[in-house]
Amino acid sequence: MKHHSIIELIERKRDGGVLLSDELQWIIAEYTADRLPDYQMSSLLMAIFINGFTGEELGPWTEAMLRSGDVLDLAHIAAPKIDKHSTGGVGDKISVPLAPMVAACGISVPMMSGRGLGHTGGTLDKLESIPGFRTRLDGDEFVAIVEKHGLVLGGQSETMAPADRRIYALRDSTGTVPSLPLIASSIMSKKLAEGINGLVLDVKTGSGAFMKDEPSARLLAETMVGIGASHGTKVVATLTGMDQPLGVAVGNANEIDESLDVLAGGGPADVVELTYSLGADMLTLGGIEDTREAALARLRKAVESGAAMERFQEVIAAQDGNPDVAGNRSLLPTAPLRYELTAPDTGFVTKCDARDIGVAGVRLGAGRERKEDDVDHGVSISVLAKVGAAVDKGDVLAVVDYRDQDRMDAARPLLERAWEVGGAADEPELIIGHIA
Amino acid sequence: MKHHSIIELIERKRDGGVLLSDELQWIIAEYTADRLPDYQMSSLLMAIFINGFTGEELGPWTEAMLRSGDVLDLAHIAAPKIDKHSTGGVGDKISVPLAPMVAACGISVPMMSGRGLGHTGGTLDKLESIPGFRTRLDGDEFVAIVEKHGLVLGGQSETMAPADRRIYALRDSTGTVPSLPLIASSIMSKKLAEGINGLVLDVKTGSGAFMKDEPSARLLAETMVGIGASHGTKVVATLTGMDQPLGVAVGNANEIDESLDVLAGGGPADVVELTYSLGADMLTLGGIEDTREAALARLRKAVESGAAMERFQEVIAAQDGNPDVAGNRSLLPTAPLRYELTAPDTGFVTKCDARDIGVAGVRLGAGRERKEDDVDHGVSISVLAKVGAAVDKGDVLAVVDYRDQDRMDAARPLLERAWEVGGAADEPELIIGHIA
Repeated sequence: MKHHSIIELIERKRDGGVLLSDELQWIIAEYTADRLPDYQMSSLLMAIFINGFTGEELGPWTEAMLRSGDVLDLAHIAAPKIDKHSTGGVGDKISVPLAPMVAACGISVPMMSGRGLGHTGGTLDKLESIPGFRTRLDGDEFVAIVEKHGLVLGGQSETMAPADRRIYALRDSTGTVPSLPLIASSIMSKKLAEGINGLVLDVKTGSGAFMKDEPSARLLAETMVGIGASHGTKVVATLTGMDQPLGVAVGNANEIDESLDVLAGGGPADVVELTYSLGADMLTLGGIEDTREAALARLRKAVESGAAMERFQEVIAAQDGNPDVAGNRSLLPTAPLRYELTAPDTGFVTKCDARDIGVAGVRLGAGRERKEDDVDHGVSISVLAKVGAAVDKGDVLAVVDYRDQDRMDAARPLLERAWEVGGAADEPELIIGHIA
Repeated sequence: MKHHSIIELIERKRDGGVLLSDELQWIIAEYTADRLPDYQMSSLLMAIFINGFTGEELGPWTEAMLRSGDVLDLAHIAAPKIDKHSTGGVGDKISVPLAPMVAACGISVPMMSGRGLGHTGGTLDKLESIPGFRTRLDGDEFVAIVEKHGLVLGGQSETMAPADRRIYALRDSTGTVPSLPLIASSIMSKKLAEGINGLVLDVKTGSGAFMKDEPSARLLAETMVGIGASHGTKVVATLTGMDQPLGVAVGNANEIDESLDVLAGGGPADVVELTYSLGADMLTLGGIEDTREAALARLRKAVESGAAMERFQEVIAAQDGNPDVAGNRSLLPTAPLRYELTAPDTGFVTKCDARDIGVAGVRLGAGRERKEDDVDHGVSISVLAKVGAAVDKGDVLAVVDYRDQDRMDAARPLLERAWEVGGAADEPELIIGHIA
């Protein structure tokens, strides 16, 4: 690879210029090989944060990150390989029912998920509520499970996209996290390294999302769809609201419980709506069905026939978890103490703030403040009254199952301010738009 | 000191916000104490580079850097303590004749200078052409010499403004050098740590200066004058042209030779003009004279009486150099080989590019490409025809004394393109403006 002067490249980005494909590849290769010190990378990242990336820069940057480590080769699997990714929210357990549903319809899902950080939950933490369930899989095992069961639910391998891992850690400590191009390339480098044919994105906007406003979320979605196109992978995105939590359950074990409800044909309306919508995207992207209507019908059938639940139990067993959890929810951990938040007035719920509820969950122990923190899988928040609901004074808005009084005391003020009751309020839109 | 979150401070500057005085002081203190890693500082420096500093931020930032190490206490010296600083140019030996001239007039000059870097020369390198001359002085010795002789010509002590030294090195490798607030605070933190009552600045603009255009140079001058005011130190600045070299001599020993000419009452007109002008600033700033006219007269008297030359010889001896150099210039090193650049046409010199000539000097060995490089004190360029001069084809434009043919071959193309001969050209303005 041609050698470049890192200082000249930093200076060009600093002054609002454009970096060329081979320059971007060189930067990532040098950084991965430990030949570029963190202080030069962080200076460049700040310049990128402030001055941005053009579409021509994003493609090669993402490509270089995804090629910085192992790339899964799933070419021997005949089924269409489609994954789903959410930018993260509160109560967002969609991946859990979705993956087995689409797998039961003939999609191969090599899903690598993350852990909760900040106020958002993580699919891995939720899955680990299932007794015995193991998310740490080596590369061969990961491939073997998806090959056999059409589905695997693991963590990101250490050897995949190592450049992204290091850059993310650096961004985290240098004030360069909420940058649209850096977020988009980070997500896409990891996902495209899975060797998939297509990707369905759930890009969230609202108080509980990283992108607070809709235009930013839309731009992030468009950016990721563009990166997919430049890589030659079909990507579609759904823009969804995250001003209030998804579903009733916020936590870990209780989100698995709610996911099992969906697989059993029940579950809260919003969780069901979004799961089916994203599932239809995955089925049409994979060529299983031509129309959304046909895809939705096939998904319903997979649930009604029990095939989706059966597929989930299969993969639970394959990953050393106890599949009996499907029929015996008492196998899931809980917490011993209970607190009920009640409505201060009679009226309509006008606010049920996802971020405050998410942070309350973290304070209870359901999430992490630091990467190295442990998660308490049993503590939970049940969101009983969402925006638009009519409540009488004293009605229970939320039930909290907790383990530690100090943590509960720290969470309570956030829960109290999360809800507002006032005049009539419309139920907010869940699915805001589609980008393809 | 109150603890702050460095990430929050980086984020605020990244988003164009303002950092408060105690936050800026905390950052410098933490960095100096090795509690802030380089990658966080470089991220912040890039944000400062792009989004700038307000006047309210510059003062405390500079103050914190100057207090990061030792600050000289010269309170026991009754004479006004005034220093001069130039932002750097080609052939800029002004400090050498200026310091003894003003010292001979009753100003105390605790001058700490730098070495050449890039295309510009450095006063320390020039002084070290004098056989035996020692610029490395410890703090006590530095103070003792200025106390006894009213003048000392040393390098910056390692213990003074260590934060600036580390930040400068970091900027050098992270593309954040040419930032007006960072340049201004770097210069001023070092100078104000000298414990001076006043400072005279020579801010250069043109091809051979760091600030290529006049508005930037003017803004830099105003910024430094403002920092002085917020510190309570009188600072005046002169804006001078650096499109062509100052004087005839570009190198090291030959610049000492030219400086001795000025002290002996001769020397090139531009060097004489600028030396006297800055000297008048120092004398009036120090309260030695009330008017420029009186100050100029006093400076002339100091030269004509031999007092200025005598003072220089005194300080040379005090710093272990051979004072006989004043009367016997053959004590200065030279180079054995000679090259003459001749005019390609008859006409007027329309360009005599300071930057190209400066870089040619570096290639000959007179300057440094890297900090660790050695300097050849004997190689030299004599600039015989400057802008506005009438030349005949074949006239000598410059004489180069060199030691190494490869180096000469590398320098020649730069010298050839440095000069242009064409239609009539006005002699450029040397002193462009004063800022106080």
